Amino acid sequence: MAGPGTVFFLSDYGVVDEFVGVVHAVIARLAPDARVIDLGHGVEPFDVGAGAAMLERAVDHLGPGVVLAVVDPGVGGSRRAVALEVAAADGPRFFVGPDNGLLVGAAARRGGVVGAVELARPSVPSTFDGRDVLGPVAAALAGDRPLGSLGTAIEGSSLVRLAASPLADAGSLGHPALVSEVGWVDRFGNVQLVARPDDLADVFGPAEGLGPLTVRVLGPPGGRPTEQAAPSALSIRSVHAFAELAPGELGLLVDANGHLAIVLQEASAAARLAVRRGSQIEVAGATDRPLPPGPPGYDPR
Amino acid sequence: MAGPGTVFFLSDYGVVDEFVGVVHAVIARLAPDARVIDLGHGVEPFDVGAGAAMLERAVDHLGPGVVLAVVDPGVGGSRRAVALEVAAADGPRFFVGPDNGLLVGAAARRGGVVGAVELARPSVPSTFDGRDVLGPVAAALAGDRPLGSLGTAIEGSSLVRLAASPLADAGSLGHPALVSEVGWVDRFGNVQLVARPDDLADVFGPAEGLGPLTVRVLGPPGGRPTEQAAPSALSIRSVHAFAELAPGELGLLVDANGHLAIVLQEASAAARLAVRRGSQIEVAGATDRPLPPGPPGYDPR
Amino acid sequence: MAGPGTVFFLSDYGVVDEFVGVVHAVIARLAPDARVIDLGHGVEPFDVGAGAAMLERAVDHLGPGVVLAVVDPGVGGSRRAVALEVAAADGPRFFVGPDNGLLVGAAARRGGVVGAVELARPSVPSTFDGRDVLGPVAAALAGDRPLGSLGTAIEGSSLVRLAASPLADAGSLGHPALVSEVGWVDRFGNVQLVARPDDLADVFGPAEGLGPLTVRVLGPPGGRPTEQAAPSALSIRSVHAFAELAPGELGLLVDANGHLAIVLQEASAAARLAVRRGSQIEVAGATDRPLPPGPPGYDPR
Repeated sequence: MAGPGTVFFLSDYGVVDEFVGVVHAVIARLAPDARVIDLGHGVEPFDVGAGAAMLERAVDHLGPGVVLAVVDPGVGGSRRAVALEVAAADGPRFFVGPDNGLLVGAAARRGGVVGAVELARPSVPSTFDGRDVLGPVAAALAGDRPLGSLGTAIEGSSLVRLAASPLADAGSLGHPALVSEVGWVDRFGNVQLVARPDDLADVFGPAEGLGPLTVRVLGPPGGRPTEQAAPSALSIRSVHAFAELAPGELGLLVDANGHLAIVLQEASAAARLAVRRGSQIEVAGATDRPLPPGPPGYDPR
Repeated sequence: MAGPGTVFFLSDYGVVDEFVGVVHAVIARLAPDARVIDLGHGVEPFDVGAGAAMLERAVDHLGPGVVLAVVDPGVGGSRRAVALEVAAADGPRFFVGPDNGLLVGAAARRGGVVGAVELARPSVPSTFDGRDVLGPVAAALAGDRPLGSLGTAIEGSSLVRLAASPLADAGSLGHPALVSEVGWVDRFGNVQLVARPDDLADVFGPAEGLGPLTVRVLGPPGGRPTEQAAPSALSIRSVHAFAELAPGELGLLVDANGHLAIVLQEASAAARLAVRRGSQIEVAGATDRPLPPGPPGYDPR
Repeated sequence: MAGPGTVFFLSDYGVVDEFVGVVHAVIARLAPDARVIDLGHGVEPFDVGAGAAMLERAVDHLGPGVVLAVVDPGVGGSRRAVALEVAAADGPRFFVGPDNGLLVGAAARRGGVVGAVELARPSVPSTFDGRDVLGPVAAALAGDRPLGSLGTAIEGSSLVRLAASPLADAGSLGHPALVSEVGWVDRFGNVQLVARPDDLADVFGPAEGLGPLTVRVLGPPGGRPTEQAAPSALSIRSVHAFAELAPGELGLLVDANGHLAIVLQEASAAARLAVRRGSQIEVAGATDRPLPPGPPGYDPR
């Protein structure tokens, strides 16, 4: 474990085609002693924001190594390919990918960018930079090649950043509320909000004192909150674990990434609310309006 | 290969999110020399029985190491997390997972449980015990930490067991028949029954003497066999290999796990019969009732 | 890296069941020092041609090792299982799989077959030769067992070959045109043709001189080109990279495998054209017939 040695690989390549396997083979050929750990390849095609969010969720749990991330709708075009070095010493030290905002959020979690190079473009544009440019650079870094030898130094401040998903202004709703985008819907249908517990506390005070809450879907991805379009509010309860919930009861908990999440026990909250990544969600007090009855067998008191 | 060294990892995490990758990263960080082999992560969410069946099918083919299995609807609740040691010396020696019946069937195939500990609960309930509790314990065992140091000893007899899927009593059907649940439908649409060849022999005598057979779907998952609801019986032939079958001809064979399976050649028997895991299937003699004609080009004689 | 050491594994096993994981475990048990790299397991069930095409796309990027490929509708039947040695010294030296045409195209890319053995059949037919026959042989080769010790020598010329997908005769269409099958639709909806740039140059001359082009779907998989059934021709532009395309504009480029591919920027060309693997595509000049208007915001001049 002298060098970084491990490549952590994330992409929107999916697992049906051979893209991921070929990148593994290329890295093995160039750095036979490196290990490749797949963080996940199920990012929706071209969804840079979803890839960045996945990487941010994962990055604090990684050991020493190199992150290789490829969600790259601009492949072959004028976007830069980059390799970054971060400040934190106890996790992955290098990040390789397109300069489209995919890497910088995770790099910020690791102390921020302390070095950056732009990678040379291939003489003929490729449609598969993971194989032809980014994978080989990750292999070189895993094999202890110095960052500076892999490209032209650039300023970290020049890197493309994604717009944050700010919490919406809930003032126009006419009652105290947290309004947040859905940042992630996982396989189980758990609905992770961009918001964190502090954001909820800003509206309602500390979690211990939370009264009955409601949840309401304000709009689809990309839409704007509107009072008219909103479906009925549903009762939701602040809990610590799935197991506290009755069948069919919506729960609001702090999930394993420190975000607020809307969940059901052994069922999909995303299907129940008909939301997906980017949907606008309102969490408000239950006392502000009457609520429809809860599911059978569930007493909301 | 002094210690177990290898972690065999099975879950219902799917391959779209980063759950599996993060557990790999955590194990690599804690046990850098361990290898992780993914047995499969496509278990239907929360289906403990399906996960247990997958593990039972796989376990006899594994070398030394640690099985990490996570299908865990009770995560964060009162269910125990456990690590088990089994008697057999020539395969995986340790099994780590929730105490919900996921592990015990496979452990029984490996000589039974000879040691068990309950793992300490995290101080704050987690929604991701694979990352925070179970993965780290699997890494510790792969790194040769003694089982007893990882938790509080418990009796193997206290472990939660799944109800077996007994063969249904076919007596009420009025003719000799084997009635079995579907235990697994694989990617190719092969329909594996819970029943094994011995169960068939109990009804019809040895396979060599099997006359023409029929297959009929008695009911959906969770339903009860009923004569009325049953669709027409279809002709099926006992074979040794897919290649013996004519196009469209249903075959009954002993599959690679030693179970009876209903198959088609290069097509999905599950789609043809409209069954899934848990469906009730009847296999009976063809002489008891007239049969509808077979598929075109297939002569059932 | 004395022996081959690495097994490159491709199949139609999918990633939902445990097939892939069990083969990994079997290889690890038999060859503890071997590494297994998954090239991909998402080949459509039983589609030997798709598996062969995937292997041909990947094979030039692999280092030393053994290719294990399993797309095997004839498993358990009379088809032979084989292990092949190829001439090229700088990539995988051995190929293991069924003798159904899956391997020979890729082997030809690696200098052709210079040695071949037929593997012994199991005494009882198996439905899972990847676990019981092919995986163990790949492990033996990865562990430096000599090819000749693993089966009975056979002539390379006796191996089953797939029929090529020849370019269709476009003469009956009444205008200069390239007619090609779709060889692959990838996750992003890029439509890879069997045809390569030389085939286009044979019809239209060098790419630099290409005038406006059109694309038209002549028929579904397995169908024959017909002028009547054809939908309207769509405008398409020869480009070097996705980034040159306007939103909604169809592009024709040389992809990362050296094939012609029909693409959209950040969208699925396969969905737009309603094609899949095997569909018949015509590429012709735009001057031969009037074209419908392009997408909004796209000026085809």
